[in-house]
Amino acid sequence: MPQSEVYAIKGIRLSTVAAGIRYPNRKDLVLFEIDEGATVSGVFTQNIFAAAPVLLCREHLAVASPRYLLINTGNANAGTGDKGLNDARQTCEALATLSGVIPAEILPFSTGVTTEFLPTQPIIDHMEVLLDGLGEASWTEAATGIMTTDTVPKALGVRFEIGGEVVTISGMTKGSGMIRPNMATMLSYIATDAAIAKSSLDKMLQTAMAQSFNRITVDGDTSTNDSCVLIATGKGKTLGGEKDEAIFLAQLIKLVRDLAQMMVRDAEGASKFVTITVSGGASSQDCLQVAYRIAHSPLVKTAFASGDANLGRIMVAIGNAEVAGLQADAVTMHVGGVRILHHGIDPAYVEAKVVDILKQPEFEVCVDLGMGTEVETVWTCDLTHEYISINADYRS
Amino acid sequence: MPQSEVYAIKGIRLSTVAAGIRYPNRKDLVLFEIDEGATVSGVFTQNIFAAAPVLLCREHLAVASPRYLLINTGNANAGTGDKGLNDARQTCEALATLSGVIPAEILPFSTGVTTEFLPTQPIIDHMEVLLDGLGEASWTEAATGIMTTDTVPKALGVRFEIGGEVVTISGMTKGSGMIRPNMATMLSYIATDAAIAKSSLDKMLQTAMAQSFNRITVDGDTSTNDSCVLIATGKGKTLGGEKDEAIFLAQLIKLVRDLAQMMVRDAEGASKFVTITVSGGASSQDCLQVAYRIAHSPLVKTAFASGDANLGRIMVAIGNAEVAGLQADAVTMHVGGVRILHHGIDPAYVEAKVVDILKQPEFEVCVDLGMGTEVETVWTCDLTHEYISINADYRS
Repeated sequence: MPQSEVYAIKGIRLSTVAAGIRYPNRKDLVLFEIDEGATVSGVFTQNIFAAAPVLLCREHLAVASPRYLLINTGNANAGTGDKGLNDARQTCEALATLSGVIPAEILPFSTGVTTEFLPTQPIIDHMEVLLDGLGEASWTEAATGIMTTDTVPKALGVRFEIGGEVVTISGMTKGSGMIRPNMATMLSYIATDAAIAKSSLDKMLQTAMAQSFNRITVDGDTSTNDSCVLIATGKGKTLGGEKDEAIFLAQLIKLVRDLAQMMVRDAEGASKFVTITVSGGASSQDCLQVAYRIAHSPLVKTAFASGDANLGRIMVAIGNAEVAGLQADAVTMHVGGVRILHHGIDPAYVEAKVVDILKQPEFEVCVDLGMGTEVETVWTCDLTHEYISINADYRS
Repeated sequence: MPQSEVYAIKGIRLSTVAAGIRYPNRKDLVLFEIDEGATVSGVFTQNIFAAAPVLLCREHLAVASPRYLLINTGNANAGTGDKGLNDARQTCEALATLSGVIPAEILPFSTGVTTEFLPTQPIIDHMEVLLDGLGEASWTEAATGIMTTDTVPKALGVRFEIGGEVVTISGMTKGSGMIRPNMATMLSYIATDAAIAKSSLDKMLQTAMAQSFNRITVDGDTSTNDSCVLIATGKGKTLGGEKDEAIFLAQLIKLVRDLAQMMVRDAEGASKFVTITVSGGASSQDCLQVAYRIAHSPLVKTAFASGDANLGRIMVAIGNAEVAGLQADAVTMHVGGVRILHHGIDPAYVEAKVVDILKQPEFEVCVDLGMGTEVETVWTCDLTHEYISINADYRS
């Protein structure tokens, strides 16, 4: 289980307000202030309808090092064309004027409903109070401020030593539907007090993503606004080469994996957390294809929800994964350690063995393709009535 | 809307009984008897876990022309390995002995729960009464006998003239979940009294499939038991070349498309029937990728269910379709004739325009990719609470 503490990071101050962007009295505007001298990496959605703030983040990151992250919920500013881009620019310009930086030093982020124009005025109107509220200890409040359909704020921290010096990493994330991150997740912000060169930071963020946010799925939909930012403020330990970086990376991966799994646990309507491990693949791609095919099958997901041992549905999903050269006879499948499939149904298998496993809130599906040595793990959830309720009524 | 009549086909007799394969007093065993001299084509699932009866159908079709189709519901005999194959063989052998044909002249079909062994005894025990009950006029009863979670039997017929002679085609189909046929659908049987050479029949079945069963999806899962058989008994008109075949093919396509659409209308929990047309593709594959991405998105399907105009979810799905070279700015989207997306949100678009459309039981989504001239259409349905109820309790 993830740790529950989140730590302040020297060189970063946060502020959160309720600006009334979509709903009254809901914290919906968050500001990160980053001290000069930090290095910052970002990864963003691969959806071709990347939202206006994502386009602007890419543009700004290419020319400047960020001093502010300005995050609003309630409206995604996606599918909004040139007007959407101008709206996002306008909020950056307003903040730049008040804070004395240039607009390119500000990264804007939005999440919420798409294809509606961003209400810029409430954002601009609340900038002074946002700036006035900046403080180091507000991580949990900020994690609340970036929520949409999330039911709990998601923030975690870790402290460890490198060469006798304490290093801290803290992170927060949001998202519980439209989740199949592809490069990053809905919105996620991670920061450390370590000093890390930009090129190393970029590489570590990519590596950590591939083992965390890019391995979870709720419903297979990659949002237009997926963004993840990693900040190294440089106020603490300076990483001294490959060995230090390896220690840091391991801790970073653990933290973002825990954050990613928190999203699956809090996924819209989810009642089960399921780990799907596919081994014996000829390629990592083959393993992922099978894992996602299982994770996205509505029939598998409803079987998980019901706790019914109708596990032939997993077999059907594997068989549909379009893995070249896959032989039905070579496939082995375990659920919660019980072998079910091995040249067809395992003769020793009886349903009674898995009934209790499927009633647990967490279990693992292991599939071996019998083709090679690659392994991949994906985390997902079940599909419930509650998911339908949330998504058929999302905007009501 | 599909026609409602189904006609007897000279040279084919049907019989249906309740054999108690899974549930008592439910018609679950159907027999087709085909006169000698007919030509028969079949297409089958592309799932790598093709069920035992599918493997046997392929084997038998390669060496003989079918005289009987033996169809059971209640158990799919899928994922059952060598024992499953032997079980299916045993039912064919029992019928062969009683009817005086060789086993290879019998095609077995199964549908129902997977990864459980087929109860062969009730099938064998009911063969005499099945054979005794054979008659020409029992198409609707047989269509009832092949149902599983279907709520209505699906049988249709068409009569038309070729060169002054009346030609009849009748067909039946079943299936309402685990529907994304890939070569054929769950189970579908089509017959005509026309005389058609095997090679022409094969080609026409393939062509018709590509415009009907292979263009529908309920939940994206291709069953292990998908099978479609087309029989030409040759008791009536002999098709006299390409012109006759073109007339026949057009009628065949219309019939199987109507049958396919009946499956979507009766899909598990479906309350909306949605036509998705994607034009302007550089390839047919690109169009299908976008259409299926929309059709499989749980967020799009729940928006359809709610009748809420949260149509940005369609845009998100398009953006996730991984079509190489697709430009967000070039995409146009209409729903029910109202233009929504064109370089971002159409400035003239207001939600009020689509609210009434989305409350209709049927509407169309049209997407133009602005890349080429290819067009594809896919038919699908919404995702409702009822789908979850049906599939979380399927075996209870």
